[in-house]
Amino acid sequence: MTQNIYDDPGFFRAYSQLPRSVGGLESAPEWPALRALLPTLQNLRVVDLGCGYGWFCRWASEQGAQSVLGLDVSQKMLEKAEATTQAGNISYRQADLECLDLPTQSFDLAYSSLALHYIKDLPGLFTRVHDALAPGARLVFSIEHPIFMAPRNPGWIVDAQGQRSWPVDSYQMEGERITNWLAEGVIKQHRTIGTLLNLLIAAGLRIVHVNEWGPTAQQVAELPALVEERERPMMLLVAVER
Amino acid sequence: MTQNIYDDPGFFRAYSQLPRSVGGLESAPEWPALRALLPTLQNLRVVDLGCGYGWFCRWASEQGAQSVLGLDVSQKMLEKAEATTQAGNISYRQADLECLDLPTQSFDLAYSSLALHYIKDLPGLFTRVHDALAPGARLVFSIEHPIFMAPRNPGWIVDAQGQRSWPVDSYQMEGERITNWLAEGVIKQHRTIGTLLNLLIAAGLRIVHVNEWGPTAQQVAELPALVEERERPMMLLVAVER
Repeated sequence: MTQNIYDDPGFFRAYSQLPRSVGGLESAPEWPALRALLPTLQNLRVVDLGCGYGWFCRWASEQGAQSVLGLDVSQKMLEKAEATTQAGNISYRQADLECLDLPTQSFDLAYSSLALHYIKDLPGLFTRVHDALAPGARLVFSIEHPIFMAPRNPGWIVDAQGQRSWPVDSYQMEGERITNWLAEGVIKQHRTIGTLLNLLIAAGLRIVHVNEWGPTAQQVAELPALVEERERPMMLLVAVER
Repeated sequence: MTQNIYDDPGFFRAYSQLPRSVGGLESAPEWPALRALLPTLQNLRVVDLGCGYGWFCRWASEQGAQSVLGLDVSQKMLEKAEATTQAGNISYRQADLECLDLPTQSFDLAYSSLALHYIKDLPGLFTRVHDALAPGARLVFSIEHPIFMAPRNPGWIVDAQGQRSWPVDSYQMEGERITNWLAEGVIKQHRTIGTLLNLLIAAGLRIVHVNEWGPTAQQVAELPALVEERERPMMLLVAVER
């Protein structure tokens, strides 16, 4: 089973105070780029893998999705999602993405935001998502960028001129990375971009678009702290099609 | 026109002394991984974009290719290629990959080794390669990895424990990178992996395999200097299909 760090009280408390937890999709700087990879949602059957507070599920419902299923391993996240959801075509279910069980060809869109880097059996998950998608349907997801995740001790270096750089090491050594983000001992799975894309292809999914997210000039103007994300790739956004 | 650094006397002299110039394909550590992306060459019509000394062209001919066309912008390289080639089904031609002109659907394999990072009009090149390939034919290429190419001043950092890291900056700023590799002022074109893959897709090519090359344990045992390539991705190997 996936480490359920989101039900750790300290983690949950810290996570619930993040801008994206408070403000939802519009507070996530990668959202415009991720949204651009989505099809028109009107009448689609949507599944959200790692739905958290349900922000995307509610948005998808507002966009005219026929039905939205939000899955998450964290009971606390689901309780908050249900408490803030009115739409009758949204349902939430506790599920471990390591052993997902979805009906065949029953979804027109699978979506996942910053959840897949926790998954050990990604080949299995991609195969199950492929099978659950209708022919021509998309999987659109964001994941921590391998360059962001690879280093033993991730952190910026700032030189005397204030120039930042992101030191990369261990890139070719795939496997567990343990970090102290919001809580001690958060376990993530490092894979190269090559491995990630090849797993998708092996599962029968066609690569449609790959975006190594960086902020736009306007985003940096509005939120100057984002300027450091011009120096490195932090997130990877991918669209694939069955 | 592409900067023709290979005809610079100093560059040519230094380049001709590199292990891969002296020893050919087997002296390039990424060759086994690149070869693994190639189809069986028997009876194929092959074009090599940036053929250099013709090592790949001669190998392709030995593998039973029907015909092999080697293209390079450097007259000096082509002269050496011709001087070391006997096979009658290999021909060489001087060509600028910025304005390639190839007959439609006339090749069963396009190959390129470490040449495409010099190209400005990569969208145009990919479209022309697509058109020159027969349906189902592959383009297989290596290119400097964007993580390797992005930094303003590329170079390793070594800490007190001897641990190497590769500091990344400027990743999201695409465009020219000027380095002093073998000669002063070598101009390369930095693009993110996302941009590179999206250009291929936009040209009508399907992503088949992506490999961010790193050495195997056996390669490191045989050539210990390769150990640093475990820390970062240095080259990107890609196979796409029309």
